[in-house]
Amino acid sequence: MTKKNIITMEHGAGGQVMQGLISKSILGNISNRSAGTVGLDDLDDGATIALPADFNSSYEIVITTDSHVVKPLFFPGGDIGKLAVCGTVNDLTVMGARPVALTCAIVVSEGFEREILEEIIQSMDLTAKEARVAIVTGDTKTIPRNELDSIIINTSGIGFAPRIIRDNGLSPEDMIILTGTIGDHGISLLSHREGFNFNTKLESDVSPLNDLLEKSLQITTHDGRSAITAMKDPTRGGLSASINEMTQKSNVGVILEEEDIPIKSAVRSACEMLGLDPYEIANEGKAIMGVRPEYADEVLELLHSHKYGKDAAIIGKVVAEHQGKVLLRTPIGSLRQLNMPVGDPIPRVC
Amino acid sequence: MTKKNIITMEHGAGGQVMQGLISKSILGNISNRSAGTVGLDDLDDGATIALPADFNSSYEIVITTDSHVVKPLFFPGGDIGKLAVCGTVNDLTVMGARPVALTCAIVVSEGFEREILEEIIQSMDLTAKEARVAIVTGDTKTIPRNELDSIIINTSGIGFAPRIIRDNGLSPEDMIILTGTIGDHGISLLSHREGFNFNTKLESDVSPLNDLLEKSLQITTHDGRSAITAMKDPTRGGLSASINEMTQKSNVGVILEEEDIPIKSAVRSACEMLGLDPYEIANEGKAIMGVRPEYADEVLELLHSHKYGKDAAIIGKVVAEHQGKVLLRTPIGSLRQLNMPVGDPIPRVC
Repeated sequence: MTKKNIITMEHGAGGQVMQGLISKSILGNISNRSAGTVGLDDLDDGATIALPADFNSSYEIVITTDSHVVKPLFFPGGDIGKLAVCGTVNDLTVMGARPVALTCAIVVSEGFEREILEEIIQSMDLTAKEARVAIVTGDTKTIPRNELDSIIINTSGIGFAPRIIRDNGLSPEDMIILTGTIGDHGISLLSHREGFNFNTKLESDVSPLNDLLEKSLQITTHDGRSAITAMKDPTRGGLSASINEMTQKSNVGVILEEEDIPIKSAVRSACEMLGLDPYEIANEGKAIMGVRPEYADEVLELLHSHKYGKDAAIIGKVVAEHQGKVLLRTPIGSLRQLNMPVGDPIPRVC
Repeated sequence: MTKKNIITMEHGAGGQVMQGLISKSILGNISNRSAGTVGLDDLDDGATIALPADFNSSYEIVITTDSHVVKPLFFPGGDIGKLAVCGTVNDLTVMGARPVALTCAIVVSEGFEREILEEIIQSMDLTAKEARVAIVTGDTKTIPRNELDSIIINTSGIGFAPRIIRDNGLSPEDMIILTGTIGDHGISLLSHREGFNFNTKLESDVSPLNDLLEKSLQITTHDGRSAITAMKDPTRGGLSASINEMTQKSNVGVILEEEDIPIKSAVRSACEMLGLDPYEIANEGKAIMGVRPEYADEVLELLHSHKYGKDAAIIGKVVAEHQGKVLLRTPIGSLRQLNMPVGDPIPRVC
């Protein structure tokens, strides 16, 4: 039983085990957990900050943070720098915020090659330019190689949101939209890391989502509510973890149509060969959205018109029954439950 | 010459070597470096974020970030958790902001004891409560013990400032005020780490400075400018690094009175025995301020009335001559230059 008292890799893997660590060891020990409407208890993609009384604005501030420990540092389709910018830009975006600025704190081991550091920073810059965010402040620490043998990049971000999008806002009848194929990031990273050769080009989907989602975030109902009712980016734990979290927090049921979930055939084959569930694999350039049914076609069309949304699809809908459960309708018509994964099957994906 | 191309411990030590790495390898590679009046180029303690046009407020947003790699994790007077909260609270405070919320991103090695993690989080909580800030969002990553053998805590912070205080605002005639004794943090950490026994109780000064400085930050001239013209917290590189940076950026000279700089006798003796310069030792609960001369006594009195400001002293003044130089008047009346340190003489202090 002593095993319970030490940290294991699963504690950082985005599934049930991590949720346990966070709620008991972290949340349970922190008293002030909120400075606005969304705080630490909400375990959302970020938090909101209430403005001082004399701020006269309809906007809210959103902040978020992520430390990136991906291995290897460079992989097909991206690198730790691109990932560090996208991870934080995307967390702000799925909260409904326009990303404005990032901080960048680097911990690097002694002996790390400066050229590689510069290549990483250049990649952060390219991605920040694409996402139209500034990198405004930072920190650099070095530690001996025997204590850290790589580089860790933390990016925290700030954005402004006219309407906060939560991950608990799903209502019955909402359509579930996925902005593209799943599994690309985790599978391409794993294949590259382990030297698998699938005879097919697998690439990470790591991309900033703010431009893709900008127009959809502007669609509102006649009484000013967002057409998007809930949103999350399915990183660690993949589609399964994100849609289960949204479903549980929203107190609804979700039925997904297995045939409609976009997966590249190369990713599907790789998953079959490796015995991995594509629904549990991390993505770094996708969003899962709940959309009011009357706006689903409009949102889908907007997504299809953007380079990062070509494969977007309506993959299911929200129901009042099956509270807290995600059910998957298989091609033969049967329903099976899609469970919250225990951890991410592939470590060190972000 | 290949030595130049790898990262060494001095690249993270807060002195000239780190400045070189930051300006060449980091700043030189980032395009969007500002989202407000203070950005990455300013290398200040944080950055400011301009508000969207419809925000109607006299406040500015300040954000800052720090990753903490202190070793050992627990030391006399504090631990990595207290340090992580104070470091970010203090960076916001010396920018003139009221700290409001922190993010907390933890990278921990597999095998780390959960009880120790909880003790660290509890310490963060106690300090956050003292500093009246909330911890609103976070991230947890685990990596294998062979790649990281400890815990790294990044805290980013957000605050609101009625008047931004820069580190480049010194003007001739300003008085230089130090809020307390110097060297306590670095020397107590080193002594504890190396097992030195000086027969005197040495303790880190790690403390949140926002309450200490709150009233002084509210003092304004008749035309609404702050009585404090410039401020910095002398962490890595100590008093020497901070006052040199302020002096160079402000394009003025500074003359410090060596006899007036508060140092505990135990710290002074330890420095003498170890051959260390107390002016270069890191502090974690002190601020160096430039204060308009007519307000210096009022500020000093406010500091003296607070538990963290009992040893506050006027230690020098700003002059128009000696541009970019800090001169130290010794007890026998001679002047010697206090140079920007090359690095921090004690690694892993924060």
